[in-house]
Amino acid sequence: MDLMDKGLLVVLSAPAGCGKDTVLAELKKQDENIKQSISMTTRLPREGEQNGVDYYFTTVEDFEKNIKENGFLEYVKYGVNYYGTPKKAIEEMLDTGKSVVLKIEVEGAGNVRKLYPEAISIFIMPPSLSELSRRLKNRGTETEEDINRRLKIAETEIQRAKEYKYIVINDDVQTCVNDILAILKAEHLKYDNMKNTINEIINN
Amino acid sequence: MDLMDKGLLVVLSAPAGCGKDTVLAELKKQDENIKQSISMTTRLPREGEQNGVDYYFTTVEDFEKNIKENGFLEYVKYGVNYYGTPKKAIEEMLDTGKSVVLKIEVEGAGNVRKLYPEAISIFIMPPSLSELSRRLKNRGTETEEDINRRLKIAETEIQRAKEYKYIVINDDVQTCVNDILAILKAEHLKYDNMKNTINEIINN
Repeated sequence: MDLMDKGLLVVLSAPAGCGKDTVLAELKKQDENIKQSISMTTRLPREGEQNGVDYYFTTVEDFEKNIKENGFLEYVKYGVNYYGTPKKAIEEMLDTGKSVVLKIEVEGAGNVRKLYPEAISIFIMPPSLSELSRRLKNRGTETEEDINRRLKIAETEIQRAKEYKYIVINDDVQTCVNDILAILKAEHLKYDNMKNTINEIINN
Repeated sequence: MDLMDKGLLVVLSAPAGCGKDTVLAELKKQDENIKQSISMTTRLPREGEQNGVDYYFTTVEDFEKNIKENGFLEYVKYGVNYYGTPKKAIEEMLDTGKSVVLKIEVEGAGNVRKLYPEAISIFIMPPSLSELSRRLKNRGTETEEDINRRLKIAETEIQRAKEYKYIVINDDVQTCVNDILAILKAEHLKYDNMKNTINEIINN
C-alpha cells in the first residue's frame, strides 16, 4: 500500500436488517486503512459512549457555528438534536491515504454524491426480500406491523439502488466484505488514483 | 458466480518486458470464467500451432469477406498477412457470462474502446523503468541497441497509460493477477451489471 495515493471516500447504505454494521465492523478489522467517519452531535452521551469514538459530542452553539462555516458534509436535525458529518476529520484521513466509510441513509447519500462526485457509493442488498423478512422476524424485537413497515421501506430503498455505483449482496458476511475490498482495490487502481505511482515508475 | 449477468470485455496492454503473457496465463488458470480472444489470421500455421487454439487460420478470400461483413472488432495487415479479432466468437463468450480478454497493442486498444466504450481497459506497468531495462537485458536475446529502442517505445506507451481505465503493476505476478481479479470482481458489482440479480432479489 506504500505507493497508494489519496484515500477513497466511500458511501455505504443498506436497508434495515441487511447487516450493514456487521459488514462495516469486519471491513475495518480486515483492512486497517479503512476508517469510519465519526459523526458530531449535540445530544448528550449515553452510558458508555466515548467522545471521539462513538461521536464527537458538542454544544448547539458550536454545531451551529460549524454549519455557518460550511464544516459539514451533511447534517440533519432530529427533534432538538443535531447530527452531522464533519468535513475536516474526513479530509485529514483521506490525505493520509486512509479510506473513509460514511454509513449513511439513502437520502443523505445523494447529498454526499452531489458534493463529492468522486465518492464511491455502495449499496448492500439482502439475498432476497423473503430472507430479509425472515431476518427481521428473527430479531424478535418488533411487531408484525413494524416488520411489514420496515419491509416496505426496504423495497422503496432497493428501488433506489440504481443511484449507487456498486451493489453488493450480504448473504454471507465474509463474501460481502471480500466484494467491498475488491471494489476498494479496483478504485485504487484507477488511472486517476495512480498518477503519483506512475510518476515514480517513470522516474526510477 | 451463478447470479452474474453478461461477461466483461477486457482490453489488456503492456509494454514489452512487462510480463503480459505470464499474467494472462495465470489469470486464465485461476479463473475459469476468464477467456482469451483468439485472433484470425491468413498466415500459415507454424509448427505446433493449432487452429482454434493459437489462431483461427483462414484464407485471404474468407478474411476479406469477413471485413466486408463488419465481422472484426479490429484488424491489421502486416506485410501480406491479415490479423484480426473476430466479433462473433467474443460475443458468444460474453453472452454465456465469460469475461473475454483481448491482449492488444496501445494503438488497437483505442479502436476497441471506440467500438465498445464499456470495455474495461487495463494497462500493465513495470515497477520502474530501471527494472524494465534489467528484465529486457536478462532475456539475453537482444542487442543493447534493441533494448534501448524497446525502452524508448515502453516510455512512449507508458505516457499513454492515461487512456486506460486501470493501471496495474507487475512487480510480483500473483499480486498483479490479484489486482486484475479485483478489478473484474468490482466491475461485475457495478449497478449496470447487477440488474438481473437485483430483479431476482426483489422477486424472491
